[in-house]
Amino acid sequence: MSRLERFGHGGDRWTAEEMLGGRADSFLDFSANINPLGPPPQVVRQLRESLAEEGLPLLSRYPDPDCRSLRRALASRHQVPEDWIVVGNGGAELIDLVNEAFQPRRVGIVTPSFSEYEASARKRGQTLITVEAGEERGYQPLEAELVDMVRSVDLVYLGQPNNPTGLLLPSDQLVRLAEEAVRQNTVLAVDEAFLDFVADGDRYSLIPRIGQFPTAVVLRSMTKFYALPGIRLGYGVAAPDWIRRIREKQVPWSVNGLAQIAGEAALADRSFEGKTRDWLAAERPYLLEALQEMDGLEPVSGAVNYLLLRLEGGASSVEPPSVHLQREMGKRGVLIRDCSTYPGLDGRYIRVAIRGREENERLLAVLREAMADQGRSRV
Amino acid sequence: MSRLERFGHGGDRWTAEEMLGGRADSFLDFSANINPLGPPPQVVRQLRESLAEEGLPLLSRYPDPDCRSLRRALASRHQVPEDWIVVGNGGAELIDLVNEAFQPRRVGIVTPSFSEYEASARKRGQTLITVEAGEERGYQPLEAELVDMVRSVDLVYLGQPNNPTGLLLPSDQLVRLAEEAVRQNTVLAVDEAFLDFVADGDRYSLIPRIGQFPTAVVLRSMTKFYALPGIRLGYGVAAPDWIRRIREKQVPWSVNGLAQIAGEAALADRSFEGKTRDWLAAERPYLLEALQEMDGLEPVSGAVNYLLLRLEGGASSVEPPSVHLQREMGKRGVLIRDCSTYPGLDGRYIRVAIRGREENERLLAVLREAMADQGRSRV
Repeated sequence: MSRLERFGHGGDRWTAEEMLGGRADSFLDFSANINPLGPPPQVVRQLRESLAEEGLPLLSRYPDPDCRSLRRALASRHQVPEDWIVVGNGGAELIDLVNEAFQPRRVGIVTPSFSEYEASARKRGQTLITVEAGEERGYQPLEAELVDMVRSVDLVYLGQPNNPTGLLLPSDQLVRLAEEAVRQNTVLAVDEAFLDFVADGDRYSLIPRIGQFPTAVVLRSMTKFYALPGIRLGYGVAAPDWIRRIREKQVPWSVNGLAQIAGEAALADRSFEGKTRDWLAAERPYLLEALQEMDGLEPVSGAVNYLLLRLEGGASSVEPPSVHLQREMGKRGVLIRDCSTYPGLDGRYIRVAIRGREENERLLAVLREAMADQGRSRV
Repeated sequence: MSRLERFGHGGDRWTAEEMLGGRADSFLDFSANINPLGPPPQVVRQLRESLAEEGLPLLSRYPDPDCRSLRRALASRHQVPEDWIVVGNGGAELIDLVNEAFQPRRVGIVTPSFSEYEASARKRGQTLITVEAGEERGYQPLEAELVDMVRSVDLVYLGQPNNPTGLLLPSDQLVRLAEEAVRQNTVLAVDEAFLDFVADGDRYSLIPRIGQFPTAVVLRSMTKFYALPGIRLGYGVAAPDWIRRIREKQVPWSVNGLAQIAGEAALADRSFEGKTRDWLAAERPYLLEALQEMDGLEPVSGAVNYLLLRLEGGASSVEPPSVHLQREMGKRGVLIRDCSTYPGLDGRYIRVAIRGREENERLLAVLREAMADQGRSRV
């Protein structure tokens, strides 16, 4: 089946153009979870200045292969030494590098979760062990099952919060898992790609406690919170010997020069964090409530800048309701994420990002319209 | 030993700053082989415009995961269908992806050659088979030895031209090798990273004949010719089933959005090619002749924008002459490439890029000064 997520992810305006018509840049995109307030003004200013500089050193010189300046800024931000940090070409590269560095035979994941964990294991022919976190479990994995998984595999990928559910694991549970991972010598890769969106995110993060967990690697993205998916930037935090193992597998200059400069400027723009959290503190309850009041769907109450929605009722046609709804909304210029291909979910699930008020209103209006149509076509 | 090439390559101003003093951005860099005429004005204009655009889509949106527009431009440039092309995050990613996609047990390389071929094999614990192309061979591999290598390994990396020698393989020899690779089902990865600098480069390229060679992959860089190492961009050309195998191993969005736009703009700027070839047609003979006339060194007559130099006479101290000279020149603000760590070369070799006339004159002056000092210190 031809899908909007042909390349595995949301935010693909070009495939939308091919499948739905309309121009790639004209879609209002709720399928990728990008902070609508960004990029931070400091980042844009810094990049513009660099492109005005004589000799254009940002373009015409190799990037620092050691990402020294950015690692310094990240180390200071997280209060860890610089050699506890590896910078990557987006979170996707880091997820894959962790697998490459530790060569697990068995990989554990929660279903549903971010598809790159599974993709990274599958392309190496590794055995996958899964723990369910679908509807029956209230979208949360059971602690006992997570512990069992940590005991029976070599590497576990865990989203904190999980994607696409948006749910956080309680921090005491995460700590107990990390302790078990140390005892079992299991690599615990905690993907905190969206944790910056949580106001008291440090409470849920493993980074402040990373020194206690020599088998944990925390993965962070700067693309979502700082709205920089176009330049690719992420980082990992772990004990220095593990960081070395990961970096040995990384190709040189994998992080481009603009990303390094943008990352530093983003970290320096502290007011951007507050503004983002203020925006989300207003828009998350607004959108959640409006969706809860709508007939025909049930939102999962995620903690971050996206919401998983379960569509009620069966499908009238051979195609999953999520695919139908995605196409109907896409024709109206609004992209949403079809979640039918997530193991653990099915054709009743879609995911939407949270954006600014006006855009959220547009999402709601188009969703109502498309669902009314869908209801009529079922009669 | 602490080296300027600590991260495996030239162009590392940050390590130079740490080792030599002086500011990272103040060095005149002959250690990385970047076109001094670039980036093309079209590229800079395009990037500036994109950073002025409302909503900053180039930063705040995911790049096209399929690099459609850039692949179209490359396909038209090389007169091959679009599905014969894979775009990568610089040549380094592509070199590594080829290895990952074909999982060779035995890898063949020429010594000396670009260090990433060997690095890619070593990090996977593969067996290396080498063919010599050092001083005794006139810096060219023997055809019979190349053919033997193709017969005895699963994957061969070949630089066309080779780096750091700058020498081209005669095109009839390359074709015979590619034919043998097809017969043996050996992957032949031909690295044409610098071939754009050769005026009649198509004569030496495998791309115009790629349809005849189902086991060949041609790797191209856009970082050197278009002077864009800061944003990372390269591509590969091969039969569609091989391109698919390579892309299966690539992480999503590995090529950032600015690189995609810059690549397209670079290809559109046709006058840049002519200007670059005019510059090199003047500067290569100028620098080569001046170096040939200098006492104490012997240049290899490479075809492209860099020259390998053999220093005459032995070393006076425990350190290789190349390391000594590099430090002496570095203290004077000029970076050169120490080639002592290339298998097949030794402490008598350095490499210099070719730059603009004034800079080349500065290189010569500083080189004379440093060599005179070296001579004196030996007495």
